[in-house]
Amino acid sequence: MQDALLALTRYWTDRGCMIVQPFNTEVGAGTLNPATILRVLGPEPWRVAYVEPSVRPDDSRYGENPNRLQTHTQFQVILKPDPGDPQEQYLESLAALGIDIHAHDIRFVEDNWANPATGSWGLGWEVWLDGLEITQFTYFQQAGGMSLDPVSVEITYGVERIIMALQGVSHFKDIQYAPGITYGEAFGQAEYEMSRFYLDDADVDTQKRLFEDYANEARRMLDARLPVPAHLHVLKCSHTFNILDSRGAVSTTERAKAFARMRGLAREVSALWAERRAELDHPLGLAELRPAAGIPTTFATVDSPAPLLFEIGTEELPPHEVTRSAAAVREAVTAKLAATRLSHGDIEVLATPRRIVVLADDVAPAEPDAERFVRGPRASAAFDKDGEPTKAAAGFARGQKIDPSALERVDVDGVEYVGVTRTEHGRGALEVLTTVLSEVVNELRADKNMRWNDRKLSFTRPVRWLAALLGTELVPVTASSLTAGRTTRVHRTAETPVVEIPTAAGYPEFLAGHGITASVTLRREEIVTTAGELAGSVHGTIDVDTEKSLIDEIANLVEQPNAILGSFSETYLELPQEILTTVMRKHQRYLPVRTAQGALLPHFVAVANGNCDRDAVRSGNEAVLRARYEDASFFWRADLKVAPETMKAGLSRLAFEEKLGSMADRASRIAAVAANLSDSLSTQDKATLERAAALAKFDLASQMVIELTSLAGVMAREYAARSGEPEAVAEALFDMERPRSAGDKPPATIPGAVLALADRFDMLVGLFAVGAAPTGSSDPFGLRRAAAGVLTILRAHPALEGITLPKGLAAAAAQVRTQGIEVPDKTLAEVADFVTRRYEQQLLDAGHDHRHVAAVLPLAEAPAAAEATLREIEQRVGDKDFAALVAALQRVRRIVPADTEAVYHPEKLTEPSEAALHAELTRVKDELRNRSLADFVLAVAPLTDPINKFFDDILVMAEDKELRAARLGLLATIRDLAAPVLDWQALGTSFTTD
Amino acid sequence: MQDALLALTRYWTDRGCMIVQPFNTEVGAGTLNPATILRVLGPEPWRVAYVEPSVRPDDSRYGENPNRLQTHTQFQVILKPDPGDPQEQYLESLAALGIDIHAHDIRFVEDNWANPATGSWGLGWEVWLDGLEITQFTYFQQAGGMSLDPVSVEITYGVERIIMALQGVSHFKDIQYAPGITYGEAFGQAEYEMSRFYLDDADVDTQKRLFEDYANEARRMLDARLPVPAHLHVLKCSHTFNILDSRGAVSTTERAKAFARMRGLAREVSALWAERRAELDHPLGLAELRPAAGIPTTFATVDSPAPLLFEIGTEELPPHEVTRSAAAVREAVTAKLAATRLSHGDIEVLATPRRIVVLADDVAPAEPDAERFVRGPRASAAFDKDGEPTKAAAGFARGQKIDPSALERVDVDGVEYVGVTRTEHGRGALEVLTTVLSEVVNELRADKNMRWNDRKLSFTRPVRWLAALLGTELVPVTASSLTAGRTTRVHRTAETPVVEIPTAAGYPEFLAGHGITASVTLRREEIVTTAGELAGSVHGTIDVDTEKSLIDEIANLVEQPNAILGSFSETYLELPQEILTTVMRKHQRYLPVRTAQGALLPHFVAVANGNCDRDAVRSGNEAVLRARYEDASFFWRADLKVAPETMKAGLSRLAFEEKLGSMADRASRIAAVAANLSDSLSTQDKATLERAAALAKFDLASQMVIELTSLAGVMAREYAARSGEPEAVAEALFDMERPRSAGDKPPATIPGAVLALADRFDMLVGLFAVGAAPTGSSDPFGLRRAAAGVLTILRAHPALEGITLPKGLAAAAAQVRTQGIEVPDKTLAEVADFVTRRYEQQLLDAGHDHRHVAAVLPLAEAPAAAEATLREIEQRVGDKDFAALVAALQRVRRIVPADTEAVYHPEKLTEPSEAALHAELTRVKDELRNRSLADFVLAVAPLTDPINKFFDDILVMAEDKELRAARLGLLATIRDLAAPVLDWQALGTSFTTD
Repeated sequence: MQDALLALTRYWTDRGCMIVQPFNTEVGAGTLNPATILRVLGPEPWRVAYVEPSVRPDDSRYGENPNRLQTHTQFQVILKPDPGDPQEQYLESLAALGIDIHAHDIRFVEDNWANPATGSWGLGWEVWLDGLEITQFTYFQQAGGMSLDPVSVEITYGVERIIMALQGVSHFKDIQYAPGITYGEAFGQAEYEMSRFYLDDADVDTQKRLFEDYANEARRMLDARLPVPAHLHVLKCSHTFNILDSRGAVSTTERAKAFARMRGLAREVSALWAERRAELDHPLGLAELRPAAGIPTTFATVDSPAPLLFEIGTEELPPHEVTRSAAAVREAVTAKLAATRLSHGDIEVLATPRRIVVLADDVAPAEPDAERFVRGPRASAAFDKDGEPTKAAAGFARGQKIDPSALERVDVDGVEYVGVTRTEHGRGALEVLTTVLSEVVNELRADKNMRWNDRKLSFTRPVRWLAALLGTELVPVTASSLTAGRTTRVHRTAETPVVEIPTAAGYPEFLAGHGITASVTLRREEIVTTAGELAGSVHGTIDVDTEKSLIDEIANLVEQPNAILGSFSETYLELPQEILTTVMRKHQRYLPVRTAQGALLPHFVAVANGNCDRDAVRSGNEAVLRARYEDASFFWRADLKVAPETMKAGLSRLAFEEKLGSMADRASRIAAVAANLSDSLSTQDKATLERAAALAKFDLASQMVIELTSLAGVMAREYAARSGEPEAVAEALFDMERPRSAGDKPPATIPGAVLALADRFDMLVGLFAVGAAPTGSSDPFGLRRAAAGVLTILRAHPALEGITLPKGLAAAAAQVRTQGIEVPDKTLAEVADFVTRRYEQQLLDAGHDHRHVAAVLPLAEAPAAAEATLREIEQRVGDKDFAALVAALQRVRRIVPADTEAVYHPEKLTEPSEAALHAELTRVKDELRNRSLADFVLAVAPLTDPINKFFDDILVMAEDKELRAARLGLLATIRDLAAPVLDWQALGTSFTTD
Repeated sequence: MQDALLALTRYWTDRGCMIVQPFNTEVGAGTLNPATILRVLGPEPWRVAYVEPSVRPDDSRYGENPNRLQTHTQFQVILKPDPGDPQEQYLESLAALGIDIHAHDIRFVEDNWANPATGSWGLGWEVWLDGLEITQFTYFQQAGGMSLDPVSVEITYGVERIIMALQGVSHFKDIQYAPGITYGEAFGQAEYEMSRFYLDDADVDTQKRLFEDYANEARRMLDARLPVPAHLHVLKCSHTFNILDSRGAVSTTERAKAFARMRGLAREVSALWAERRAELDHPLGLAELRPAAGIPTTFATVDSPAPLLFEIGTEELPPHEVTRSAAAVREAVTAKLAATRLSHGDIEVLATPRRIVVLADDVAPAEPDAERFVRGPRASAAFDKDGEPTKAAAGFARGQKIDPSALERVDVDGVEYVGVTRTEHGRGALEVLTTVLSEVVNELRADKNMRWNDRKLSFTRPVRWLAALLGTELVPVTASSLTAGRTTRVHRTAETPVVEIPTAAGYPEFLAGHGITASVTLRREEIVTTAGELAGSVHGTIDVDTEKSLIDEIANLVEQPNAILGSFSETYLELPQEILTTVMRKHQRYLPVRTAQGALLPHFVAVANGNCDRDAVRSGNEAVLRARYEDASFFWRADLKVAPETMKAGLSRLAFEEKLGSMADRASRIAAVAANLSDSLSTQDKATLERAAALAKFDLASQMVIELTSLAGVMAREYAARSGEPEAVAEALFDMERPRSAGDKPPATIPGAVLALADRFDMLVGLFAVGAAPTGSSDPFGLRRAAAGVLTILRAHPALEGITLPKGLAAAAAQVRTQGIEVPDKTLAEVADFVTRRYEQQLLDAGHDHRHVAAVLPLAEAPAAAEATLREIEQRVGDKDFAALVAALQRVRRIVPADTEAVYHPEKLTEPSEAALHAELTRVKDELRNRSLADFVLAVAPLTDPINKFFDDILVMAEDKELRAARLGLLATIRDLAAPVLDWQALGTSFTTD
């Protein structure tokens, strides 16, 4: 291993990097070494490489986990500015490490890095070696809250992983560190002991005090304008925070506070560093970016229509951007060409991770000429009575460089003007295309954009080359520093990675000849076909429907799919399938192979990019999956030894929130709230709920969930079932975590739904009560998701209509109060309003008419009912009778002062129309069975006419006070009868009787 | 520079070292990295190399000092066990760095390393490259209070210094760190800012809190049996202490306490680590030492007398050990040979830093045979009356394997025995020599001894080879793992560093042929001669008398002196000569060159070892001196800009002791005490004292003294004089620091002496009062030296007899009390006793008779007077009259009970002898002018006879009470008259009248 570090050091010094030493206080990553985090700021050039033992207390595993260490070794490289070919330089460095880059499948897989604690982010990739993440490769865009100009390329090698792969060992302890000594022999004891410190033995109070002291010292150093010691103390702060975190001593609010504080300090450090460097007049000089390319002014001519090829060559685009960018480029080219007079045939845009290819048929050699009339003075003012041109006409003619005698006359809206018809000569195709395509590149944007060594361009990943041919003619497109050429880049590991394009015609076939499938459709088909065949070879299938989005993603991760069948030990099949498939899909982008009956087989299909040594790549991917499954099995086996109750006891060690206590406190509040809300449940459901509530959240204390948090609930179900709990209890525990995100399924069972509601009510009320409500764009506790969850569940379970929002919140408040926390009514009102607003947003997002939504919002405390009403309203769109009823009710509401009570003396109402309305109202009231809109309409519709007649015939505001009161009371009674159904006024004019 | 680090890394990995990373918390030296301080413990082998940026807050200089950095780069190598040739491996590593080891003067200069804070020490050298210290080379003997077995070789390269020398730059900022970037560009800002933090801005309260927190965390980790995190926290503790120290926030007592605490923790860490490794069954196995050599059992024979050569080859011995060891070996060889019967001629022992050579002339080929009478039974019991042997005789004869008839008779003290005369055959010379010389090596010891890769030997530095020849015959001496051979090692840089010795004869000449002068006398002569010639070449001389001890040292630093004349810029001559010569002698072992009148010339003589490129070595040494003088000039110029008063204000920032306050507090106490003690001074001296007292200690705040503490007082004089103070004031300030050590001169001036006394009285009283009195072997504050100083000054200045010890201590106590510190009388008595005991020791050490010393001790409060008395006593040794007086006075004292008062009624004394004594006493009392012994004897001698007569004639203990009282009163009066002069009783029998 030490040879590898030396090889990398040598390699990068040969490329002009300076070597510095690891930082001499604990850092979580090489990025935090000032040689990165400060030096990337400002305009000075900087090229550095160094080893950084990175300390992650959270990753402590007592040296037992084969891949996880509290201190792992990073090799960090910073290239500032971007040298233009950092990926190629990086690949060469792998070769220097002894990795055969032609044999292996090395890929750049989207991974955007962000460190909120320091206000830093960048776009880039994790680099995969046969599925193993070996390097983080980032274009550093912002640090300490400051935009970087120039941007730096940051390459972070995960040294232990690379060495384990190179040496073919499966536990870090077995790495041959130096001749005759293994990693375990050299560092095993430290791994164990530091794990003990970080996980078990560090003193929480001391660490909290240290955190304060460091933060204050950082503050003071900032005030003294000393960014270097200030940064040092921010790092100490951060490490201390990490220790507290791994000791489980940081609650959610404390975390948010600590992060805010560290982020604030880090930002100030960065700003101060940049200022100080400016004051020192940038001792290292100014970095130089690529100069802008010269803009062509002369263009060759083309004789006949020809096909156009325009290729935008990029570094690996994120999969979703491949598709999105292709569409955007297609649109842009089409629109921009349409704005010219250049004719052309079909435009097709193909895309791979590394290129966006525009193909257009039959592009004309030039724009046709066009005529344009240039208007001069009115004809009446152009010539004097002698027919001689006036001064105005003469001046115009002189300006147009024609003889006044050549002035033409033209009629514009009945007024005659003089003027001249000018011919605009069409531009040649090359000129038009150059302009149009330059604009396309300059305006290229993605959802999230970045900068590289170019002064102007901005895109999701760097644009590195342009190729543009019209037939065989070069189109001299330039965009910022780039100039289009006749060459393209094929696979980086090809014998000739840069090849000349003979002609635009047949470019996809040309690329195919170089092992690149330009069309995503074809790539997708290839994947489906070859993966299916491979699966078939082991009597399995790929479930193309279930895996659709994964296949879409894979198709945009490669330029040429090379599906490889891998296997894993059948013993792992004893693990729940969710675990196996989660690992395969989310972590590795492998396609699971199943039997026709849907059971998992011990195989997977990995899709490599282009040619490689299939055996080497298979075995590499298998090793990666084995390591991950080994981890999972380890956790699985360890967890299975612990009964759910015992595991649940561990919740008391997991902090939830400072005031709200531990996760155990939270679980018991949830159980109590659920019990409170269980009145309407069947006896059986109640029993299930009671048992499930007693175990609620127990799996959060399992090693598996601590490791793979997305399996919360899933593991609860598994572990509960295996420990002999009734299936219904296991299901309820699974259900209580649903929905996990917008679009996820709600709980399927009633006990699960009640638990899930209790969970979210507790979260909302508790966190609002302790002052942790979301603000602006910040929602660190995911309360918006919790609110949405409540709504989703209540909407999915009309049977739970008894559980209204106020009831649920009150139940939660009662529990929160038992922790000694005040929950004023005002707070509950705020929560209710917060949920209602989420509801409104949900309905609007779903495309409902905002007036209909507003109309049912008063019903939001029972979302299922509200939604039924909304559906009812929408069904009645176009229903004239309903519209008339709405209009009548709105009219009633408009005329009755808000404070009018719904009481009246019928005997006062003597006019026929008012008497009739009274009679009808009395009848209707009796018929009304419930307040659903359907029932209401059925019952109340007969009132429409009497109401209208009443208004036609009767002056409500009679002079006689008592009479007026009776009339208003009659109308108010109608108003109050309708009010609980929906907010009629809010419907506005969405229903018209026209 | 980074290439150099890589070259070293490569070199040592090629020699089997593992590479680790710098430690990720601040360490003051690579030694503290657990890869050294913990791994050297226990029996496991370990070979490691690493870079260590070493943080020394104290060395912060804002990046301005050319050689001093708050973070400098060490390259650290640990070889465990000692490979047997670590020096040679080290020299090769220098070659790997591109240093031409043949051209340069590379030397191993004694430097013993100790880190009391961790209970660690080792013996070794600093390695000099042309006078520049580039490496610390240590045989690590103890770590964390544990003896190391095996010992490790620790090599610590000072990378910046090596690179500055290699690149020929004179400021660290100018080092070319990497292509295109200097050290200053890369690290200059951090140097400045971290200096600010360490010197000015770190928050003292925070750091104190951190110290506590770290220490407590270390304690807890020890309790949890986790040595690794415990060590981490000890390091953090230590760094924090260093920060506090560089902030000037650690008082002397706090320092002592903090050190004790850190040392305690470090020791526990070490012990625990060793225990844990044992529990883990020593994962790295057990280191192997060299096996013991086979002991020879057969020996060749020698025909004729021959010269003996025996050489003990060592690594570089400390200079004083060269001389001491030569003498010890000479003594051992002589004594051991004397105990054999082997005859030999003169024995000569020569020594250089690398060898002790025993030469003996005319060693006989063998011991002569010897006869020995073995005694049997008495003759009377040997034969029966028939003359037949008795059983006893027969048994004896059988035991001796002779016939009873062969029994001889011999007379022993008048008793006749039978017996037999046996011949003991002499052993061959080789056998005798082998035995004797083996013992010499095995028993070789120095003042301070160490271990290396040998199981048994122990000496001041490793013994690496033995050569032993008797004439041309190999003497097969073995000692532990060593076996003597026929080869010796000459200069390491010689073409053939190991050469065969043809014969013992003429060995010194043989060595001379290889450029080695075996005799220190010759080396000394060579130095004196060649240095003198070189000095003469620039019209200067070497003051051989003044430089005697330096020349002695140099003569034992080299095997062949190679004096080289160097020069420095005349501009440095403006500095006080003490500065220049202190740097030359103490730091560089250069001989100053002076004019005949004693003025310094801008030259020096350095003495290299053996052949080298004289120009390169000269220029290297000149650069070193220039750098040191540049530092000094920098301080000098900076200091001169500050007036003494202003400088003195800086004393308030220097902590003295927690309770006793700052150095400014101490200076003002000293001034007040001095004023209090100035009664007897002349008006002029009083004025001088007043002014000097106002400035007392001001130079402690000067940069020069902070840097070179030994110049305290020297710089005060210089700075005071140059700022226009009267010369007498400047001299007093110089004087007040004297004597600096035992044997140093006392103050020459009266005002200086008074200040010096006040200084020491304050120190003694203050520190005793706060409970910091010396205990056992520990005297961290140097109070023994202070007490000795008081005595030296008072003894040197009889004119100050008015300043007695009680008076001085009382004056100091009054000042200490103003700081709110209690000074009980008991404490003052303790101090007085402490000083008196020092005085007693001083006098005894000076060889005075212990009885005489005891006699004058009661006078110690005025040491000048006591000493005069002592001289007087000693002059009277042999004076019969004095002896008679002593006897008489002792007799008086013996007979008078201690509580008898010196009053009596003369009228009661009627017997002639008692009346005569009374009369004589009355006369004598009138004649006594002062209490000096001389005067006393002159006046009192006439009492001797009357006293003796009194005792002869009178029964003191008369029955008559009143008479008895009168007689006792008479004698008590005599007793009290004599008491103040000295303690007559204590003289015991040192004066006899026989």
